[in-house]
Amino acid sequence: MNVGVIGLGLIGGSIAIDLRKRGFAEKVLGVENEKLNAEAALKIGLADEIVDLEACVAASDVIVIAIPVGAAVKLLPSVLDLVAGTEKVVLDVCSVKECLCQVAAGHKARAQYVATHPMAGTEYSGPWAAMPGLFDGRACIFCDIEESSPKAVRLAEKIYDVLNMRVIRMRSDAHDMHVAYVSHISHITSFALALTVLDKEKDEKHIFDLASGGFSSTVRLAKSSADMWVPILAQNHDNVLRVIDTYIDKMKEFRTAIDAYDEERIRELIEEGNKIKRIIR
Amino acid sequence: MNVGVIGLGLIGGSIAIDLRKRGFAEKVLGVENEKLNAEAALKIGLADEIVDLEACVAASDVIVIAIPVGAAVKLLPSVLDLVAGTEKVVLDVCSVKECLCQVAAGHKARAQYVATHPMAGTEYSGPWAAMPGLFDGRACIFCDIEESSPKAVRLAEKIYDVLNMRVIRMRSDAHDMHVAYVSHISHITSFALALTVLDKEKDEKHIFDLASGGFSSTVRLAKSSADMWVPILAQNHDNVLRVIDTYIDKMKEFRTAIDAYDEERIRELIEEGNKIKRIIR
Repeated sequence: MNVGVIGLGLIGGSIAIDLRKRGFAEKVLGVENEKLNAEAALKIGLADEIVDLEACVAASDVIVIAIPVGAAVKLLPSVLDLVAGTEKVVLDVCSVKECLCQVAAGHKARAQYVATHPMAGTEYSGPWAAMPGLFDGRACIFCDIEESSPKAVRLAEKIYDVLNMRVIRMRSDAHDMHVAYVSHISHITSFALALTVLDKEKDEKHIFDLASGGFSSTVRLAKSSADMWVPILAQNHDNVLRVIDTYIDKMKEFRTAIDAYDEERIRELIEEGNKIKRIIR
Repeated sequence: MNVGVIGLGLIGGSIAIDLRKRGFAEKVLGVENEKLNAEAALKIGLADEIVDLEACVAASDVIVIAIPVGAAVKLLPSVLDLVAGTEKVVLDVCSVKECLCQVAAGHKARAQYVATHPMAGTEYSGPWAAMPGLFDGRACIFCDIEESSPKAVRLAEKIYDVLNMRVIRMRSDAHDMHVAYVSHISHITSFALALTVLDKEKDEKHIFDLASGGFSSTVRLAKSSADMWVPILAQNHDNVLRVIDTYIDKMKEFRTAIDAYDEERIRELIEEGNKIKRIIR
């Protein structure tokens, strides 16, 4: 099967690697508008060819849209226009789903599109960040699949089976709410932590000397790409604002307890937070 | 040399392991008030004997205080009383230093005490969490060493050399300010993140399914022990409140930018946060 991948960054590139390595993709046709990324993707071998959108869609059986969600919202209708009336299937892999399902709604090729979100990644980006095995054992969320044809869903399932992912089905609005809590807020808390520390610790040597493993792990996501995260936060606007508000309330509860030297209340908050142990290994 | 370790948890236990394994400690005498921990420490082999405080000090050349900082502040004067007039040296390894230097100030045995903070740890606690090599390559901060005798400082340096740590010297008030930024706030942000997610995601299966590596890494410190962290946050009160306030301001800057769909401002904030790359590998 020929696979078209639009956007050969961390996610698109990693999908291309494993789909070929595991025998699913005979040929990978990449679309990559950034010249440097396109050259790197060819050099690394993420794609057999870099072609334009029309040529990619024409030559591919399945097209994976793996660009930042803001750009994906703009591109999806054109891709659906191109596949309409064919047997081709279109997937996207963006982290926000309701906006994509909305823009596809009512399109004559809607049934050929499956909205998916493979929950994996690293804080790095670009073709250089692509790696084999990135998705192994992780969850992939399929949204609003009643809008997709059974045939398209089966092909998407096959692809994520090759990528060793567990498929979870969810409504796109529920998806966007849940990921705000378990993914988007983690990124915002890391960015805010980085800003707080960089603001104060003008002398970088101090941070470097003093930062323990705990700090590095908590701030790691602050290295994440603005190209990816600006549109996610903007597109998942309402959910993200709600979770920020809850988060600020929790911080204020700590502040109040510490301000009052209320060790019993600080303990309650910490022990309540400790319950995350039950969930995260 | 005989080493007394008061508190055989993650830090005290790990010190005991490496000081013995690397030939510095002939004998480790442990003080551990919690019966279960004392039995575990003996069984694991962290100490040769569990004894009471007086017996420990009497038989040890150097005494390492490795209990939560609130308890250490109360205990330090008694330990200094016991070592006064001898050649014995006392170290503590707590994460807040000014309160300890203050309680030791003017004591007749002050010069025998060295305030140290080995910056290493994990989110686990108790004797079971102790491990070899925990401190290798990390930084250890010595505070207010002009108050310690050169001989006591040399012995402390020797110990941290055996533990493979880089020693950094700092005033205790500067230490407490810096660790609030690079360590204490990381813990509070993790606890607040855990509380936020637990509050919302009543259905733990969802968190478990959806939580990606990013969430796990950001929330990891929320597993940290209340016994250790309640006294740290209470003792480093002023610095911690200041850093929480800065942090809440940064979160609000994100909130304002997202609320206004101001993608340019969101990008500025993220790219500013990305600068942490220069510091954290």
